[in-house]
Amino acid sequence: MVDILHRVGIKTPTPEKVYDALTTVEGLAGWWTDDTKGGGEVGGVLEFRFPNGGFDMEVVESRPSERVLWKVVDGPEEWVGTTVAWDLSQVGDYTIVLFKHQGWREPVEFMHHCSTKWGSFLMSLKSLLETGEGAPAPRDVQISDWH
Amino acid sequence: MVDILHRVGIKTPTPEKVYDALTTVEGLAGWWTDDTKGGGEVGGVLEFRFPNGGFDMEVVESRPSERVLWKVVDGPEEWVGTTVAWDLSQVGDYTIVLFKHQGWREPVEFMHHCSTKWGSFLMSLKSLLETGEGAPAPRDVQISDWH
Repeated sequence: MVDILHRVGIKTPTPEKVYDALTTVEGLAGWWTDDTKGGGEVGGVLEFRFPNGGFDMEVVESRPSERVLWKVVDGPEEWVGTTVAWDLSQVGDYTIVLFKHQGWREPVEFMHHCSTKWGSFLMSLKSLLETGEGAPAPRDVQISDWH
Repeated sequence: MVDILHRVGIKTPTPEKVYDALTTVEGLAGWWTDDTKGGGEVGGVLEFRFPNGGFDMEVVESRPSERVLWKVVDGPEEWVGTTVAWDLSQVGDYTIVLFKHQGWREPVEFMHHCSTKWGSFLMSLKSLLETGEGAPAPRDVQISDWH
């Protein structure tokens, strides 16, 4: 079992707006993909669509300003059944985001790609909150031939 | 045992220049840190210094245009003894870089940080080769309160 881990710090006085960007359709569309639908409450399913496919995430946990946990219920075979956890904490002027995409069965090449791509999208989340502008799909940063 | 994995694709006709950027002091200084010294040949030690510390890497393997393997011989406690592998292959117009930083003992918070930071430096390597300009320390992209 191998995980994708990341940590970014977002310059903002409280975790509130970061939490909103992880739990509302408008917030999520501001950094991950324009084409976001569904419900961000516990038990709801968020639908993220990209030019080449997408992911459906069931919201398993949602504790304001602290933690969000998704379970992948539809998407690429390698993703289905994995979980995506977001843990927030405030350290001085920064909201720290600890990110874990867990439950990958094998460290396949696609997992290497998703790791770099998640890092890039976390920088998009940081940018959205610090400057008002993220880089969601289809305007996301291209990291390779796989986009 | 947990690993940091990444994949980027660099638009360049052959892996040759990517290999040079991983094995020469001038190349490494163009995307990782200005303050790079040492020898990139097998058995040599590369010394990378940043404003807040640094790493010494022994070059364990170096196969032109294919693979580079470093072993961390000095640096932060969590890094010493870990390995950093770079596998290169050509897919159409892109040199694909598969990156693995392996041998971490625990998935500590610092590892989350290093994962995101490696992703950012891989984008710096991509930029160096595609545009002639990378973002090495101390002009690297800040990802958090930990820089």
